[in-house]
Amino acid sequence: MPRDAADLVELLDLETIDTNLFRGHQQVSSLPRVFGGQAAAQAVVAAGRTVDPAYVLHSLHSYFLQPGDTSAPIIFDVETIREGRSFATRRVLARQHGRPIYALTADFQRPEEGWEHQQVAPVVPPPEECLDPKKLLGQPDDDPEWGVMELRYAGSSLDGGLEPDEARPGRQRVWLRAKGTLPDDPFVHVAAFAFFSDMTLMGAALAPHGIRSGSPEAMVASLDHSIWFHRPFRVDDWWLYDQDSPFAGGGRGLVHSRVHTADGTLVASVSQEALLRKPRAPRQEAGA
Amino acid sequence: MPRDAADLVELLDLETIDTNLFRGHQQVSSLPRVFGGQAAAQAVVAAGRTVDPAYVLHSLHSYFLQPGDTSAPIIFDVETIREGRSFATRRVLARQHGRPIYALTADFQRPEEGWEHQQVAPVVPPPEECLDPKKLLGQPDDDPEWGVMELRYAGSSLDGGLEPDEARPGRQRVWLRAKGTLPDDPFVHVAAFAFFSDMTLMGAALAPHGIRSGSPEAMVASLDHSIWFHRPFRVDDWWLYDQDSPFAGGGRGLVHSRVHTADGTLVASVSQEALLRKPRAPRQEAGA
Repeated sequence: MPRDAADLVELLDLETIDTNLFRGHQQVSSLPRVFGGQAAAQAVVAAGRTVDPAYVLHSLHSYFLQPGDTSAPIIFDVETIREGRSFATRRVLARQHGRPIYALTADFQRPEEGWEHQQVAPVVPPPEECLDPKKLLGQPDDDPEWGVMELRYAGSSLDGGLEPDEARPGRQRVWLRAKGTLPDDPFVHVAAFAFFSDMTLMGAALAPHGIRSGSPEAMVASLDHSIWFHRPFRVDDWWLYDQDSPFAGGGRGLVHSRVHTADGTLVASVSQEALLRKPRAPRQEAGA
Repeated sequence: MPRDAADLVELLDLETIDTNLFRGHQQVSSLPRVFGGQAAAQAVVAAGRTVDPAYVLHSLHSYFLQPGDTSAPIIFDVETIREGRSFATRRVLARQHGRPIYALTADFQRPEEGWEHQQVAPVVPPPEECLDPKKLLGQPDDDPEWGVMELRYAGSSLDGGLEPDEARPGRQRVWLRAKGTLPDDPFVHVAAFAFFSDMTLMGAALAPHGIRSGSPEAMVASLDHSIWFHRPFRVDDWWLYDQDSPFAGGGRGLVHSRVHTADGTLVASVSQEALLRKPRAPRQEAGA
């Protein structure tokens, strides 16, 4: 986890090797493998570096292919598959040691106007009234483990904070923001959102089974990751990550989510499927 | 539209040019451009041809890049980006006249077991009691325009058949099936579902604006298309396509959907964003 906003900005600043070829450097990490959100954010930056800034990233779809090695830089190879009047599309293959670890396709659009509607934001307590997980874990406010990420739990179907809903068997809501201040450049916020968006999602898929996000009762690995960017927003202001899981089965769990700013504006949607495995050692299942 | 099940099976039977290189042939079409579902289905077949049948397709993400030419075959170039113990991943680039028209990434999994939950199916009238659009259009039951596709409207937030819901501003439900009988091979049903899944979705995004799917009041073009396959199912039995739209703006509309078989089993989820443009000639907007 980058320690602060400056550290995150540095992580997003790729080295150009050649046209359409970039190198992303690692930071000191306690993780055994590269955090998925880092690969996604750096790939977004690589794609964006090859696109006319008049085009804005409106969606991405990606797959995590292999665990990334935190001791080696990541190479990002960008391929132009559309250069149109309205849309520009890039495929990015991220690799280490000659092997693909992450594949992204990203679509950029020249801004235009059209019909507008949005799902209304749920009514939740403001972040100041929500549980800080550091308190739960008995950590100090400035615990370095959390680095640039600030998080507050706004409710989950696991602990009764959200009423059960048969249309959405698993639900979780968290407030998130980058600590400190990021530069005003909107593309920094787009890439930073890709970074943070790989956090917490599977809590919604595990909730129906009585398992907390991060618990050793489940082995979790992101499989795919999709973002639809609806409107520009600041990642260093609080945003609500409203998540629900329509399905789990076959060792996988799917989560759809909506991202609202504090004033209720819907600014992004994120979908992710992850591998959800029971640990190999026999162990009693904790819930339904 | 393929005339019948045999015609659809023929459309899905690609010619092998070389290892990982395939050619999809066109059928007689009244459409000015290749139907997106055809590109998706043929690309799924191309990817599947290169994967050990012990692995089952569990998800795909794709972008429509350029209108396809119905008078030329489509070339499908398959690239292996993961060949793992549990997962096999392929990128497929579809091209015509040397230009990419469609890009797909597909992920196959060796079946395993895990936690299970699913969103409960909505209560809707059975297909026999739902509106056949052919009746609405004054077409005979065997009108050739519909070919292998059977469709029944089960409700929309446009016409009052579904109550308004601020959490889902636009909603639409349709029953769909392939007419006749497809072969039992589960992969034929996976590819056929990719074909049909590009139908009707944007009705949910246009409903809040008082516009019917297929109306000349909106210019619609699919941008991306994602499918999560949850469980095997037959495409020639009725399935309910339950669609809602959380967002429209910037000339785009996003629709999430769930696919349930008639017994309520959740078998797939589909997400699509499309370009939704007002026609160029000035015209009164029909709704909100």
